Amino acid sequence: MDYERPLFFRVMQYAAAAERDVVDMVSGNPDWAPPDALREGFREFADLPVEHYQYPPSEGLDELRAGIAAHHDVPTESVFVTNGTGEANHLGTAIGLDEYPGNEVLLTDPVYPYYAGRAELLGADATYVPADERGRLDPDDVRRAASDETAVIVVNSPNNPTGAVYGRETKQALVGVAEAHDALLVSDEVYERFDHSGRFCSALAFDSEHRFVTNAFSKSMAITGLRVGYCIAPEHLWPAVRTRHMLTNVTCSRPAQYAVLRALRETPESYYERNRSLVGERIETFTAALDAAGADYVTPEGAFYVLARFEDYPGTLANVERLIDEAGVAGMPGDAFGESRADWLRFALVTPRVEEAAERLREFFA
Amino acid sequence: MDYERPLFFRVMQYAAAAERDVVDMVSGNPDWAPPDALREGFREFADLPVEHYQYPPSEGLDELRAGIAAHHDVPTESVFVTNGTGEANHLGTAIGLDEYPGNEVLLTDPVYPYYAGRAELLGADATYVPADERGRLDPDDVRRAASDETAVIVVNSPNNPTGAVYGRETKQALVGVAEAHDALLVSDEVYERFDHSGRFCSALAFDSEHRFVTNAFSKSMAITGLRVGYCIAPEHLWPAVRTRHMLTNVTCSRPAQYAVLRALRETPESYYERNRSLVGERIETFTAALDAAGADYVTPEGAFYVLARFEDYPGTLANVERLIDEAGVAGMPGDAFGESRADWLRFALVTPRVEEAAERLREFFA
Repeated sequence: MDYERPLFFRVMQYAAAAERDVVDMVSGNPDWAPPDALREGFREFADLPVEHYQYPPSEGLDELRAGIAAHHDVPTESVFVTNGTGEANHLGTAIGLDEYPGNEVLLTDPVYPYYAGRAELLGADATYVPADERGRLDPDDVRRAASDETAVIVVNSPNNPTGAVYGRETKQALVGVAEAHDALLVSDEVYERFDHSGRFCSALAFDSEHRFVTNAFSKSMAITGLRVGYCIAPEHLWPAVRTRHMLTNVTCSRPAQYAVLRALRETPESYYERNRSLVGERIETFTAALDAAGADYVTPEGAFYVLARFEDYPGTLANVERLIDEAGVAGMPGDAFGESRADWLRFALVTPRVEEAAERLREFFA
Repeated sequence: MDYERPLFFRVMQYAAAAERDVVDMVSGNPDWAPPDALREGFREFADLPVEHYQYPPSEGLDELRAGIAAHHDVPTESVFVTNGTGEANHLGTAIGLDEYPGNEVLLTDPVYPYYAGRAELLGADATYVPADERGRLDPDDVRRAASDETAVIVVNSPNNPTGAVYGRETKQALVGVAEAHDALLVSDEVYERFDHSGRFCSALAFDSEHRFVTNAFSKSMAITGLRVGYCIAPEHLWPAVRTRHMLTNVTCSRPAQYAVLRALRETPESYYERNRSLVGERIETFTAALDAAGADYVTPEGAFYVLARFEDYPGTLANVERLIDEAGVAGMPGDAFGESRADWLRFALVTPRVEEAAERLREFFA
């Protein structure tokens, strides 16, 4: 895969350059508003004394860590603020490879492409465990794939791109596989707030030294550009997390942490609930139109993406570009997520124009 | 060295916990004000439409890159915004090790400890080239130390902790050594705006594919906590920079980039000049008191640190703590920067109480 010019950006640029009006369903950028208190946080930051413009603690602002710890009911010391889930996943994968025997990273197929790229960057061997067509992962398949060589297992639930949500039993079994093979389960839970199934279960539910949970406010507060993420690490990995985070980034941007802290304190549950509902409505609208267009699709249990398959229209980059030019809808080629989804297209429900997009697809494929 | 609990934080915590009043000269956090336009940038950001809260380009905001490129007279495409100079140095060191033959990183002694830690984290062999007592580096010593094994040479001018500024000939010779040994010169120029000698010369002055320049607004705008840094990379390394930056951090925090862009456009030269003068005055005040105390010291040509040596008082952590308790002045143990400065203490001139601190030292050592 070509990480240098990620496919996301390439498709977004193609859509932006198109002569016609295009509904952008490519990125994972929410189009809804961040919490009001977050904006207030930046106004407040602008007037703070100079010392607030200097290095925050490397692990993150104390009160932000405490707030995250309270939300997840874990010790504050186990929380490390990172530059988005991206850095958190980087830390988990790199540290897992350093601290556990073996050089293999187990990933799922389909896979969020950065996980695969990161394994490659770190010189690890990647092995892919296929999910079923709905995106569900059978932990027995993971168990069969795991070996003494397995150092890290990376999973993502709610899942991008499939929308699958792994339930309690699956998560527990995955923690068990990590324990049995002396490996680290890196559990990316960034879509935690977009569980439409009620089945979401955090890896934190299981007391284990083998689980490394990553998350961020990027999706939950609609602030992918602020880069406020975190990991929750088992105690024996705290020194490794501190060291690698320090020597990679020193610390993370303070104004964003400050604003998120204010939003974390003041944002009511209704904010998260409203956005989850909004996505739920868009899923209904979009999948109804896909039905009308005669497409195959997977109704997402979580996150905000829909994988769809149209007859004789495989999810290649060429077909994505044709869809932009001729239908005015931009999605992602399925093969960006692995060979298994090469026939599919991924549509992100991060536009108020979901209905219009669905209508355009219906007409194009009619 | 113990990066997990960096000595900086340990000493700062000890000073904060002291019962008496302590003048903090430990950290590299400026105590002067960031530019007014920077604060205005945060106020403005608070009211921006939602799309400004989403991922900026991975390489940084276009206009910020263009502004940096204009300042240094380099192509915009060669500029990558990073999470402070920390990430920029991480990218330079890691990419140099990946892309050039050999597994050795050449560092100076004394050394900024993160460089050494990073070499260790990346599994490289570190070789130290001694600077003279004033901190000057003889490029012939670097040339003699370099070999086919050398992949990266990391230098810092104006230098932390010595205050040395490498002139044009030294810089040119260092670029030449990198070229001769097919290595990458990582030139950390974060104290560029604090050159008291007029001799500062950027590695960018020399047209070469072997120099990787790192910098940030952390010191120049007194914003170490905002994490807006950058690297300027030779063209053949652009793909590697994009890939590693993407897979480590995805992108950097947008509000900080936005505020820095506004400050970059609107801040007059007089802002930088005023802060440089302020540090210059503090150097005079502090070194005059060191003279009165009968201490050895090196008058810094750049940056904002003074290395000082008191008779029969080596720069150990125990002596630093005693100085906090008995004199009310907190500095850094010299051995944090390498064996060669074990007799020395480093004092950061980032407090308006430099005169008071100097007076306290004079009394203590009288």
